Amino acid sequence: MRPLTTSRIPSLSGRSILYTSSRWRQGRLQCFSSSARRPCSCSAPSANPVTASKTLRRPPSADNETDYRALGTFQDLFTSSLYSPGSPLFLPNGTHVINKLIGFLRTQYLQYGFREVLTPTIYKRSLWEISGHWVNYKDDMYEVRGRGATGEAEGEVGEDESYGLKPMNCPGHCLLFKSQKHSFRELPVRYADFSPLHRNEVSGSLSGLTRVRRFHQDDGHIFCRPQQIKGEIASALGFVEMVMNTFGLQSYRLVLSTRPEKDFIGSLELWNSAEAQLREALDNTGRPWTLNKGDGAFYGPKIDIQIQDKAGKYHQLSTIQLDMNLPQRFGLEYQVSEREPEYNPETPGKATPVLIHRAIFGSLERFLAILIEQYAGRWPFWMSPRQAIILTVNRTEEVVRYAEMTAAKIAGFRALQQTDGATVPKPLSSVDSTFVVDLDTSSQTLSKKYQRAKQMKYNLIFVVGHKDVQGQQVTVDVTGQLPSMSDQQVLDLEELLETRFRDQALRKPEAFTAPVDEVHDFLVQLEKRFM
Amino acid sequence: MRPLTTSRIPSLSGRSILYTSSRWRQGRLQCFSSSARRPCSCSAPSANPVTASKTLRRPPSADNETDYRALGTFQDLFTSSLYSPGSPLFLPNGTHVINKLIGFLRTQYLQYGFREVLTPTIYKRSLWEISGHWVNYKDDMYEVRGRGATGEAEGEVGEDESYGLKPMNCPGHCLLFKSQKHSFRELPVRYADFSPLHRNEVSGSLSGLTRVRRFHQDDGHIFCRPQQIKGEIASALGFVEMVMNTFGLQSYRLVLSTRPEKDFIGSLELWNSAEAQLREALDNTGRPWTLNKGDGAFYGPKIDIQIQDKAGKYHQLSTIQLDMNLPQRFGLEYQVSEREPEYNPETPGKATPVLIHRAIFGSLERFLAILIEQYAGRWPFWMSPRQAIILTVNRTEEVVRYAEMTAAKIAGFRALQQTDGATVPKPLSSVDSTFVVDLDTSSQTLSKKYQRAKQMKYNLIFVVGHKDVQGQQVTVDVTGQLPSMSDQQVLDLEELLETRFRDQALRKPEAFTAPVDEVHDFLVQLEKRFM
Repeated sequence: MRPLTTSRIPSLSGRSILYTSSRWRQGRLQCFSSSARRPCSCSAPSANPVTASKTLRRPPSADNETDYRALGTFQDLFTSSLYSPGSPLFLPNGTHVINKLIGFLRTQYLQYGFREVLTPTIYKRSLWEISGHWVNYKDDMYEVRGRGATGEAEGEVGEDESYGLKPMNCPGHCLLFKSQKHSFRELPVRYADFSPLHRNEVSGSLSGLTRVRRFHQDDGHIFCRPQQIKGEIASALGFVEMVMNTFGLQSYRLVLSTRPEKDFIGSLELWNSAEAQLREALDNTGRPWTLNKGDGAFYGPKIDIQIQDKAGKYHQLSTIQLDMNLPQRFGLEYQVSEREPEYNPETPGKATPVLIHRAIFGSLERFLAILIEQYAGRWPFWMSPRQAIILTVNRTEEVVRYAEMTAAKIAGFRALQQTDGATVPKPLSSVDSTFVVDLDTSSQTLSKKYQRAKQMKYNLIFVVGHKDVQGQQVTVDVTGQLPSMSDQQVLDLEELLETRFRDQALRKPEAFTAPVDEVHDFLVQLEKRFM
Repeated sequence: MRPLTTSRIPSLSGRSILYTSSRWRQGRLQCFSSSARRPCSCSAPSANPVTASKTLRRPPSADNETDYRALGTFQDLFTSSLYSPGSPLFLPNGTHVINKLIGFLRTQYLQYGFREVLTPTIYKRSLWEISGHWVNYKDDMYEVRGRGATGEAEGEVGEDESYGLKPMNCPGHCLLFKSQKHSFRELPVRYADFSPLHRNEVSGSLSGLTRVRRFHQDDGHIFCRPQQIKGEIASALGFVEMVMNTFGLQSYRLVLSTRPEKDFIGSLELWNSAEAQLREALDNTGRPWTLNKGDGAFYGPKIDIQIQDKAGKYHQLSTIQLDMNLPQRFGLEYQVSEREPEYNPETPGKATPVLIHRAIFGSLERFLAILIEQYAGRWPFWMSPRQAIILTVNRTEEVVRYAEMTAAKIAGFRALQQTDGATVPKPLSSVDSTFVVDLDTSSQTLSKKYQRAKQMKYNLIFVVGHKDVQGQQVTVDVTGQLPSMSDQQVLDLEELLETRFRDQALRKPEAFTAPVDEVHDFLVQLEKRFM
């Protein structure tokens, strides 16, 4: 732990933490927010207008700083290096958030029928020539060679040939699709991929997490039949809506870009059918959408999802893009029977799938930057790199041991004896819920430790002392939760607290007592109910 | 689904599936195995000798094929491409297993104090010169350039300079460690990283998953104080033991390699202390270990963990390697007070950490190959890419709808209406347990679907028909579980089945009925108790 700053909070000897920013009023938890721009109400399900107090109060901590770079440094999220400009290095806290974002999507993928794949980082030049990237995208690509290789192609795919460091996953996914036979009955095939991608942006344009050379997309490619476009687009738009709701980013706009006047590929008939299906899916969202006529790519129409930042500027996040080009270039096909509408007597038994590129977050790095500012560093519990901390009242052996045991119990595992190699614990399974619980047993005063934990924006702060050891309990402060919660969530939290810990938790949400054995399950509920 | 093969199983009309390989005998489930080499008993905790029947019977399916390449193809785990030789492409099933392996370690990392980081893929040549890789490792490294760049270094870290595609994570982790200040109180700092790595192996040596150019390590680097070596080694060895137990790979051997005669770096005193700590940690494991005197690297001693394959050949998996070189090369330091034993008056207030490189699986790709052969494609439920399948008795709308609803319910989510973009489901949280449940509603006969599901080695097979719709139930076959279970686990499964589904499940484990609402929780128990 770093040195504490000096401002003082009354000692906890009497167990009454006087933390003025979190106070009970009118029988309700207050939802404190650093400013009206915080997502205090934006996550509330629109179908459930609620009556929680709208009087938000700014906590005394200096969290009006919302620049993601400053917060990223303050929260130890990421750093950069001269040795790899434009490739952010994610510290443990930043990696934790990125992994939570990926895990979140992975869990939803089951429901949306995506299956994740793991594809190479480098492909020979011959592949990029097939895909068209080597010609059309050359300035943005990195070239890779075995050291000592000349880079010349010898024969079709020579060993001496140079590689391209992948700027996107589509060619790899086309290879995967092509590696297996597909019947029309199996389509759509939906691949997802979180591989790192590299694009050689000019050095002057690089900036933090938003303009980078190495990034990760929540990339997805759908190979489908022409008549399945509408269903896939509808599903993708529904997925976008769910994700944006989850992160309080509901105020996005939808933009449809259609066939360019000339130099497009594919038949007019296919374009017209595809565009009609996209329009219908857009109409069905119930959201307004705008048209960028003629602004689609030469290989297909697309839908962009753009969110507005606090300064009013729009940023593109999600994109859903039809592609009639790559499946042709790669000679992709599926088997189709004579009775099916896409059956073409000129290519008996075979049809070419339509490819849909789609990403919801877009770049994970850029999405992280947006979320840092969106939450002003006050992460919702489920994705917080600082979910909970335990502070000890003193450094007696009894209290320190109890704190260590409590940390493990709350986190969801048994404490290990580090020096005892012979102890082989039972592994945790992936259905065991675990949490990040830090421990501060330093010799600082409790008030300093407490103030520091608040500064670090821990969602939950636990305090343990002699009395807690006796009672097998902990003192809990849940008020760190509030700033990232919607009004509805604050009401739900009240209900949860009351059910679990009775009135005392409602009366004193900054310092109530809880039996230590009940805390882990409380955390499971926090994660489950307040995503 | 692919075409079914032809051998026939009696129809399910009367709900009695005659699957001769899974039969009840002497009141116990039999643990069928393709051979005595299957891990049927090897996962049993050694402290709990059990009395289950040792008479293992080979099931009729042709799973005596244990070559990982053949099984990898048959189970749609991975493929390869001429466009990226030595970089396996993982299909959804293979990616599922790899992600389960990574998820498994991630969960344990919390307990062992590792924190994951995410580091760049390419670093400028200047960095590899500091680390020594550019000189010592040049033939195995790929060189990367922005297209059009000359590769010449201009100034110290010029924009035109070429990069190295990382063959290992250590230099990146040194950069991370150096980016923050560290006090002796914070050490050990433990980073984990699953980044893809590239090593330019000669093309003639490439082979499947075991000799590759692109791979992933469960890489970890520990920065610690000299006196913490023993504790960290003990913890690492305990971690190895837990992991190997989990996968039934207990018969490994430990090899210690010590200081070479000459050309080593670091003081004799540090070497002696380090080696003594390694020996003591090895002695404390209670396992025999062997000594490779003088076979350590010039920068530190190491412990290798080697497992024996069925042919008796040893393969190196885990490695634990001390490094006194890189921390010096990178000028790493931590703050230390005068009262601490490592305080050196010549470098007042500063000390150099010891670096420990360690991996448990080693290469994930190679570990996967070992597991495929270890399990002969019969994956334990928790990591199986084919956890469960639902087969319909017929194709009536009633049954098909019920099957879809049941699949979603068992998997742990609500079924989505694909064509209805306006439906925004509640997101699943990471504490919601989800499972892979496939569905076969094809027009094939049930017996063919059933046979195919057995061939595909689904762990659980569910059958639904009109009677099940009426009774809100499913017919369950759990016998696909057995071959991957230890004797103790078979006994545990019996107990679980009896508690949950009463005698009928024990009498007829290949076709008992279960209320559909209770199946998901049964799967959670299967994952939790049989890892």
